[in-house]
Amino acid sequence: MVDLEHGAFMEQVEELAERRRWPDVRDMLVLLEPADIAAILAELPEDRLPVLYRLLPKELAAEVFVEMEPEEQELLIKSFSDTELKEVLDELYVDDTVDLIEEMPATVVKRILKHADPETRRSVNEILKYPEDSAGSIMTTEFVDLKRDMTVEDAFKRIRRTGVDKETINICYVTDPSRHLLGLVSIRTLLLADDEDVIEDIMETNIIAATTMDDREEVAQDLSKYDFLAMPVVDKESRLVGIVTIDDAIDVMEEEATEDFELMAAITPTDKPYLRTGVWETVKSRIPWLMLLMLSATFTGIVIASFEDSLAACSVLIGFIPMLMGTGGNSGNQSSVAVIRGLSLNEIDFSDLASVVWKESRVAVVCGVLLAAGNFVKLLVVDRGLMQNSEVTILVALVICLTLVCTVFCAKVVGCLLPLLAEKIGLDPAVMAAPFISTIVDVLSLLIYFQFAALLLGL
Amino acid sequence: MVDLEHGAFMEQVEELAERRRWPDVRDMLVLLEPADIAAILAELPEDRLPVLYRLLPKELAAEVFVEMEPEEQELLIKSFSDTELKEVLDELYVDDTVDLIEEMPATVVKRILKHADPETRRSVNEILKYPEDSAGSIMTTEFVDLKRDMTVEDAFKRIRRTGVDKETINICYVTDPSRHLLGLVSIRTLLLADDEDVIEDIMETNIIAATTMDDREEVAQDLSKYDFLAMPVVDKESRLVGIVTIDDAIDVMEEEATEDFELMAAITPTDKPYLRTGVWETVKSRIPWLMLLMLSATFTGIVIASFEDSLAACSVLIGFIPMLMGTGGNSGNQSSVAVIRGLSLNEIDFSDLASVVWKESRVAVVCGVLLAAGNFVKLLVVDRGLMQNSEVTILVALVICLTLVCTVFCAKVVGCLLPLLAEKIGLDPAVMAAPFISTIVDVLSLLIYFQFAALLLGL
Repeated sequence: MVDLEHGAFMEQVEELAERRRWPDVRDMLVLLEPADIAAILAELPEDRLPVLYRLLPKELAAEVFVEMEPEEQELLIKSFSDTELKEVLDELYVDDTVDLIEEMPATVVKRILKHADPETRRSVNEILKYPEDSAGSIMTTEFVDLKRDMTVEDAFKRIRRTGVDKETINICYVTDPSRHLLGLVSIRTLLLADDEDVIEDIMETNIIAATTMDDREEVAQDLSKYDFLAMPVVDKESRLVGIVTIDDAIDVMEEEATEDFELMAAITPTDKPYLRTGVWETVKSRIPWLMLLMLSATFTGIVIASFEDSLAACSVLIGFIPMLMGTGGNSGNQSSVAVIRGLSLNEIDFSDLASVVWKESRVAVVCGVLLAAGNFVKLLVVDRGLMQNSEVTILVALVICLTLVCTVFCAKVVGCLLPLLAEKIGLDPAVMAAPFISTIVDVLSLLIYFQFAALLLGL
Repeated sequence: MVDLEHGAFMEQVEELAERRRWPDVRDMLVLLEPADIAAILAELPEDRLPVLYRLLPKELAAEVFVEMEPEEQELLIKSFSDTELKEVLDELYVDDTVDLIEEMPATVVKRILKHADPETRRSVNEILKYPEDSAGSIMTTEFVDLKRDMTVEDAFKRIRRTGVDKETINICYVTDPSRHLLGLVSIRTLLLADDEDVIEDIMETNIIAATTMDDREEVAQDLSKYDFLAMPVVDKESRLVGIVTIDDAIDVMEEEATEDFELMAAITPTDKPYLRTGVWETVKSRIPWLMLLMLSATFTGIVIASFEDSLAACSVLIGFIPMLMGTGGNSGNQSSVAVIRGLSLNEIDFSDLASVVWKESRVAVVCGVLLAAGNFVKLLVVDRGLMQNSEVTILVALVICLTLVCTVFCAKVVGCLLPLLAEKIGLDPAVMAAPFISTIVDVLSLLIYFQFAALLLGL
């Protein structure tokens, strides 16, 4: 990457700011991308922020503003005069204004809405009424619309006149007078067409569109699947109300992936960056799950307690409990994660249940047998041979290895079933990963273990 | 989503194909997006594939071909005449040809290179020489290049003449005669400019570019961070050699996320969809990790064996081992996943080590104390009260709760440290998740448990 050396650059900016050499600071910042400027401003002392921000040229300032974290945005807005606020708002795209409003406290929101122009206010309110995870909530209402009877020349005139305020001009949408979506035409098609061609004749009419209430994750997946740069969003009456652009779709995909990672690690998802989340917030997102999982381990305790006499009679069995539970948990986790990822990439759905279970069963048998064989050898060579542990008899080794085969089988089947069932009943499958699966598999493996011990060792 | 009802549609296609009503099949298919057609063809019996594929109009056929899985592509190529192969290859973009070549067996590759035109062959060989995870390997060499002294009118002429073969025309690149990258100009800027404006005056010169050897994941992250539609790729001499488009960047991001998910679940990453991976392939990607983790559980066995006498003296302690190890594992996993995700989103890096550890330590203390308190109440109310287990004395409860506090602390610190250290020494941090962390934490929690037992219970 032709990248700035962050550390050295930061120091220089700080030093120049310290010496109040504002024009020099400005000249350094304007060379950067908005996202980088936002990152640099975030690292400076809070009281410098408004001063430095005001140094930026108006248009760039708005772009930087969009890239900032809510804390800094709030700080800035509070330092803005009404005129300054209005200027920033005028430069923002509608969907960015919506994002901003969703993050700000009520008093700031009131001030923002008061200073937004009436049309923006209408669009913002329109978007805000859609549920948080819907396509409607991430769309922008600023797209280029064309009419079917326009010529390519007319279309270019319209794009030149209105394009500057639109989030993208790469795809233009053709609508009828009551705003029904009739087709779309890319800027590339327009450029390669003749000036006299009529839009109707060159537009693409096989349209894939989202509806406002569609899940935003599905829309993002479809944008990726079809390699679109934007996806039109229609209301219940098939009227075009907005578009979702690829950059917003990517943000959604990243957020959803992060959410999956967090759920799979038994963390309640937050949308804040790691270092920006306070200790209490972090504790709040982690403790309920830890507490729940800890208390549910009561069951393993009960199982062990009820076999206490057997364990006392053959105490060598105790030492292998962690290995059996661990291997079971890992096996189950492998299957659940494979299925969870498949579900979120739309590679599998509930109708594949039978083939998923069939596949995992076969994988489980092979893995179980290989692990048992490996462990059998290890028990004989290491435990009996090297460590001279005479309590590890062939029968004990057999109990352990048979438990392994059965535990791995149960773990893999449970691991692939639970995410599919969760999806079916409308839960997020990602919850059905390691922590939850392990808790179930722990109990199963102990029950299997003690059954085999009773059977083969007569305990 | 305005979506086809997949099941019903499939049946209709199958029935029409059965009755050899080819024109009807064709009319149904051409209404769909290439990705959907590819999905439908994949579900039909293999021997129908070449027939149905040949029904598609030439350009659409090539688009469908790109969306297919390697198995079907190979099948098709083998059924193609030389002329047919040449036709498909002519329609493919260079980066798609490279993807194809990377997936095909040697004999097919030879045939493909033989029938590609010389310029494509040169570009393909150029791209193939970059390492698998580099920006060079995912770039395309088909971009629009402009000269600094062109007028906007000249630029449009050039775009109209050469644009049809370019992967994107939305961003055009300005180069000097020796192909050094001077600037870039978006199609939007061109459209909003006057015909007589000179490119040099309107082009953007603050360029962020990747070099051919940059990590493809970094490039994808940057495309997303800066909201670019394409990223220019330059060689060591700053000459523009290609571009990475947003659709390819999204694929990279998805693949990398899947890889992280798999590594975190102790699965060796594969790039095949779940249901397309055979049983043996799946076993091969899972068994080494399971075996390794199983054998490393030998340590927990040794720790337990060495405390066998203490456990025999106070057998009630055995029942809480799974709960302690589980809670430790879950706590460690939460921290490691939070850090791993932060690393892969570039929110944190190794230099944040101190603040990460400081944060996790505080979170750990709060979580540990809360969990210990919760468990203390549970031990008194459930184990002593409800289940009348007189062995659970206040001292035993104290041993368990102190162990919890210390285990959670160690787990969280280990959990956040290991991914950072892995990143530092060039390993993928995602390996340092649940399975690996648990194995370490298991041993730690047992050692802590037995220390407290020795101290407080005099065992």
